[in-house]
Amino acid sequence: MKNPSKTVAHRPGARAIYDTLKGQIASGVFRSGGQLPSSRTLATELGVSRTTVTVAYEQLLAEGFIEVQQGSRPRVALSRISDGPRDKAPRPSRPLPLAAFGERIRKLPAWPYYSAPKLVADFRYGSLSSEDFPTSVWKRAMNSAMQQQPKLLAYQDPRGSHRLRLALQAYLWRARTLKCDVEQIIVVSGSQQGLDLCARLILDAGHRFVIEDPCYVMARRIFSCTGATPVPIPVDADGLRTELLADVDARLAYVTPSHQFPSGGVLSISRRHELLEWARKRNAFVIEDDYDSEYRYDIRPVPPLYGLESHANVIYLGTISKTLSPTLRIGYLVVPTELQEVFASAKQLTDRHSPVIEQEALASLIEEGAYDRHVRRARRLNGDRRKTLLNALQHTFANRITIEGADAGLHVVVWLDELPRSLESTLIETARSAGVGVHSVTPHYESSRTAQNKVGLVMGYSALSPRQIERGVRILADAVHRVRRER
Amino acid sequence: MKNPSKTVAHRPGARAIYDTLKGQIASGVFRSGGQLPSSRTLATELGVSRTTVTVAYEQLLAEGFIEVQQGSRPRVALSRISDGPRDKAPRPSRPLPLAAFGERIRKLPAWPYYSAPKLVADFRYGSLSSEDFPTSVWKRAMNSAMQQQPKLLAYQDPRGSHRLRLALQAYLWRARTLKCDVEQIIVVSGSQQGLDLCARLILDAGHRFVIEDPCYVMARRIFSCTGATPVPIPVDADGLRTELLADVDARLAYVTPSHQFPSGGVLSISRRHELLEWARKRNAFVIEDDYDSEYRYDIRPVPPLYGLESHANVIYLGTISKTLSPTLRIGYLVVPTELQEVFASAKQLTDRHSPVIEQEALASLIEEGAYDRHVRRARRLNGDRRKTLLNALQHTFANRITIEGADAGLHVVVWLDELPRSLESTLIETARSAGVGVHSVTPHYESSRTAQNKVGLVMGYSALSPRQIERGVRILADAVHRVRRER
Repeated sequence: MKNPSKTVAHRPGARAIYDTLKGQIASGVFRSGGQLPSSRTLATELGVSRTTVTVAYEQLLAEGFIEVQQGSRPRVALSRISDGPRDKAPRPSRPLPLAAFGERIRKLPAWPYYSAPKLVADFRYGSLSSEDFPTSVWKRAMNSAMQQQPKLLAYQDPRGSHRLRLALQAYLWRARTLKCDVEQIIVVSGSQQGLDLCARLILDAGHRFVIEDPCYVMARRIFSCTGATPVPIPVDADGLRTELLADVDARLAYVTPSHQFPSGGVLSISRRHELLEWARKRNAFVIEDDYDSEYRYDIRPVPPLYGLESHANVIYLGTISKTLSPTLRIGYLVVPTELQEVFASAKQLTDRHSPVIEQEALASLIEEGAYDRHVRRARRLNGDRRKTLLNALQHTFANRITIEGADAGLHVVVWLDELPRSLESTLIETARSAGVGVHSVTPHYESSRTAQNKVGLVMGYSALSPRQIERGVRILADAVHRVRRER
Repeated sequence: MKNPSKTVAHRPGARAIYDTLKGQIASGVFRSGGQLPSSRTLATELGVSRTTVTVAYEQLLAEGFIEVQQGSRPRVALSRISDGPRDKAPRPSRPLPLAAFGERIRKLPAWPYYSAPKLVADFRYGSLSSEDFPTSVWKRAMNSAMQQQPKLLAYQDPRGSHRLRLALQAYLWRARTLKCDVEQIIVVSGSQQGLDLCARLILDAGHRFVIEDPCYVMARRIFSCTGATPVPIPVDADGLRTELLADVDARLAYVTPSHQFPSGGVLSISRRHELLEWARKRNAFVIEDDYDSEYRYDIRPVPPLYGLESHANVIYLGTISKTLSPTLRIGYLVVPTELQEVFASAKQLTDRHSPVIEQEALASLIEEGAYDRHVRRARRLNGDRRKTLLNALQHTFANRITIEGADAGLHVVVWLDELPRSLESTLIETARSAGVGVHSVTPHYESSRTAQNKVGLVMGYSALSPRQIERGVRILADAVHRVRRER
């Protein structure tokens, strides 16, 4: 056996260690009172003698940066902790070599994510209350999944856990009358990843895609970032106005037929058939985002587009973000047979597969019926929240508002009939400073011209207690009153 | 308040329910002896009367498809369960409307993932033994994270948990002398997603990228799928032969400087500087994949490229797939300040953010020192495995093999000096039928011409017990003997 060659490598000296640690302490890398590694550990990690580290530590001690107590690891001196922002490196002036996709993303305005403001009530759409979450059931399932880890920790099937896909297959049938093969199901990291895979696999720069107007912005964005051009088609109370599709040539149409996002219509049966007929004629794919179909109140369920016709070009997209939690990042695609392989390969290339333990836990919840029970409970709880919100709005605003999309889902759109849209941002700011978060429907429209000329709010209620909802509506009403008085 | 409109929707009749259930039973949707939903549950889900469901169930019972016992949910009759494959829908002859990315993916040969063969020993690279996994520590951290869920279950910072990024910032410094801002760290779903984000943000069709030859195939694939052209640069025992870069114009160079994958060299200091100098001159990005830097044996640590020069265009990529488990899907990027925002937006657009609970659990492991302890333990265990493998190879093959890359990492490359490459697949098949999985180095080369004309094997050892390693090497030696005799 020939000997492997040895590599001579760079080792930091005591001075370099001192400099780096001092910089890190000054810039707040170590949290208040945080411990530094022991000199032995650091010496091993850096491949230097323990003496070298000790010299550096002694210098830091002498200068008051750290405190050392006999027998324990050095701590950062509390007086030296900085929580402030650090100096940023100056931006170099060279052109940033980005791809077209990168350039398109760079030009997008930031899309907010939740950042825990201290509000009486935040009607932001998309959040759930952790009080609804089946914590003990989930913990039990997670612990059981962690205990049952196989002997080999190895990369898995990119399509996801076979057990979960079997469970989803049965669930999709009983909950949505959707029939499919296990092989057609691809577990994704939330529906956003499902949309991204569709975008990348189907759309190129120069292509066109049909999008609802108003629409789910994160879908429009990911499709647009391929360089394809959106063809916005207006919606009404029956969903996408398919009669406007006739002359549209596009590769893909993205729809939310169970509960149009955000305006809330349910796509009528005749329009469903028209949409599928259009897709067949144009050889286009329809992406059916069934994001909140578990929540319907006074209406009967509508079967999904998927399966309405046997050879339809439908890609179905489901998620547990609205039933369990958006933080778990689990969604699933049901793709046409002919796309199974390319979707599986794309998932493997983009992130190998989704994390394993949650998939097994979710599979066991579905198998045992605990998921269905949870969905029924969540539907009841959100039905109560919805009723509270509708009652509070009725009681407070009477005929001065129009409500859309209350039949299903976890949000309604509220049009303040007496406030012109020019007052929207004033109202939102006024409400926020009084402790209530409300969010405009305007950014969901392709252009402000297509929206109505009055203030429209997307009001999500699934994260709020009935009491918060009632207080929130009262505060909103006060804000409306103030804005009207001051206009 | 104006009333929301009611939608009249389609409801399946008893016949449709019967047909669907029968089809699902015949095709194996329900597992052996599996329970069907109760008639009450199914009626609620489908929005039909319980009688309608009962009629369908009674027909299925009469025809022997299901069995019903008083008081419990109907079960599929065991005799009716089919585990075989189902009829596939015939592939339509229409052209599949895929994007260029989709077409490129469709043309790729499948990349295997692990599928649990029953072998005495599988030297597949990339798997870990779950016996090394700190199960109880991890479970405790996961349970604590699940218990501490915030009141709101809402979308999070796309860059990942702030607590985890703080912990990683400190870890990167003490383990890798890498200094960065928390804002430069983006938590990704495994290093593959990190590579994908780099590919999409930086490369377009027509661009060129530098890749090591041989290389990590999943990196080459994701870069190539952008339509960019690989510029393969050979490696030797000191890593990438940077002297060959001089005339290369490219947008991006992908390197594995700590332990070249798969050949195992450590990029020398002078070549590190040459690579960075090339990147600066060409305004190109260097992606430093530090996938297994935790594992080094008789050599001193080499500091990462990142930080060698203050304005270097380096994107650093780390992972816990080689320390904890590849099934957790957690990796992290450290990106230049000027790229922070575009990477954060891209992560948000592609999957919102990575799952939350694991991130919090990992953060607590790092904060408490449990991660560092685990890494030291894993290093010791894998050091023992490595020694066992090298001893077994030495004992069995003596001077008839050359070993590369044994200084670091979790695999070695073994060249069987006396076997020409034409016998490679025969050897691999012979070994496999004798119970040992070995894997060729050839697919990692840009073309078979650049590989040596002898059999080369990538031998990973991190998933195997010392006993398995010893038995595996003996069986491999027998296989080599047989193949030589029969040639």
